[in-house]
Amino acid sequence: MNIILAEQEEIRDNSLVLTDHRAKHIIKVLGSKVGESVRCGIINGARGEASIVSVNSKYPFRVELQLHLWDTPRVQSSIDLLLALPRPIMLKRIFRQAASLGVGTIFITHARRVEKSFWDATLLEPSHYKEHLVHGLEQAIDTVLPTVTFSRRFKPLVEKLLPKCRRNYTHLLLAHPKYPETLSQVLVEKPGRILLAVGPEGGWVEYEIERLRDCGFSPFAFGDRILKVDTAVVSLHGAISSAIEYLS
Amino acid sequence: MNIILAEQEEIRDNSLVLTDHRAKHIIKVLGSKVGESVRCGIINGARGEASIVSVNSKYPFRVELQLHLWDTPRVQSSIDLLLALPRPIMLKRIFRQAASLGVGTIFITHARRVEKSFWDATLLEPSHYKEHLVHGLEQAIDTVLPTVTFSRRFKPLVEKLLPKCRRNYTHLLLAHPKYPETLSQVLVEKPGRILLAVGPEGGWVEYEIERLRDCGFSPFAFGDRILKVDTAVVSLHGAISSAIEYLS
Repeated sequence: MNIILAEQEEIRDNSLVLTDHRAKHIIKVLGSKVGESVRCGIINGARGEASIVSVNSKYPFRVELQLHLWDTPRVQSSIDLLLALPRPIMLKRIFRQAASLGVGTIFITHARRVEKSFWDATLLEPSHYKEHLVHGLEQAIDTVLPTVTFSRRFKPLVEKLLPKCRRNYTHLLLAHPKYPETLSQVLVEKPGRILLAVGPEGGWVEYEIERLRDCGFSPFAFGDRILKVDTAVVSLHGAISSAIEYLS
Repeated sequence: MNIILAEQEEIRDNSLVLTDHRAKHIIKVLGSKVGESVRCGIINGARGEASIVSVNSKYPFRVELQLHLWDTPRVQSSIDLLLALPRPIMLKRIFRQAASLGVGTIFITHARRVEKSFWDATLLEPSHYKEHLVHGLEQAIDTVLPTVTFSRRFKPLVEKLLPKCRRNYTHLLLAHPKYPETLSQVLVEKPGRILLAVGPEGGWVEYEIERLRDCGFSPFAFGDRILKVDTAVVSLHGAISSAIEYLS
């Protein structure tokens, strides 16, 4: 936890009282005392510091902070994600990592090779997945939560949702280890916003790839290795970010 | 598991008998029957197929395979890693992901911000960490195990080991979110082999950065976000691989 994050609703007159794991972190990990400062931010808001006004360092932990927030959120990644719903344990890791990388929007869809039971996971409720996104922000000292959109059916995604948000992107890229095109062939000049699609374990089926191509996705291979979805997402995010840097 | 991997010593006259989790995988996950084939390879050797000669599909599982190996190992990544020893649970994930990405050598060193107790982990014994490397190879359909080298003290690393293997690399790169140089400034033409250094949680201390610079490392920042070590390793591996592609 490299920044203490709070909801706007928790703050009154620039004062924040913590009694949960954040209070424990300040006391046990940071070892901060009254008068000292810690990095602090408001979720989807400003960042800055908070000075410690009072501490109860024995259980039940309690820390009272006075906020001084002046700094804007971090610059976000210009890459959004379209994922076939992964198994919950994998999705947790992706949420954390995507948030720490600054991804703006994560579209999650059903696909032929997604197990139907994954859609019953409690993790799909905002009250459950938000903590993993916040965890990623706390790591990266950021405040901006990624937006998460679930599409329980593939057809409405390709027929309605994607055509509607197509104009937000200069490139729709579909990573697939079997295509002959490479990243440097599909991304040849400085792009704007990019939507990156990563398939499920076992990959998209042919029908899905065709529908995604109809939506404007360009398939490309970044090496021929079959990677786990979380490894693929982070590696491809790095690869495209680097490509953007080299094309600038 | 996208390929069944075996040690050379397990094979007799091109025949392989499995009674462990690999047999269970062939029976329960792949559902393969006698006469069918599965992808197979020898660790640090060739890849190909294996036809199923006999199966005992009830406990105790047993599968007998006849091997037909003709294919060479995958092309390896041209990126090696230098890591400060991470906590064991993190190191497991890095081993799996680095192996699946095709990393050749992983140097692991002590650093000021590495907890000394991490060096007592059983994971540091080859008999323990090898399974995680193999897991990564099984994912990526590869056979070549990364070489892992531990350096329990930082000084011999920078005074002996690194100067000795310096000539294997065209670039030594040190990723650090606080440096003004970017990847495209330190990697400006098609490189050969690259050694990428990623620090511990909390970063290398100033002394360590200076000693690594003395060894020839160029510091650079790939964004200013503080990432967990595993996220950083995979993201940077993707970024540098992409840079190599764009510079080719």
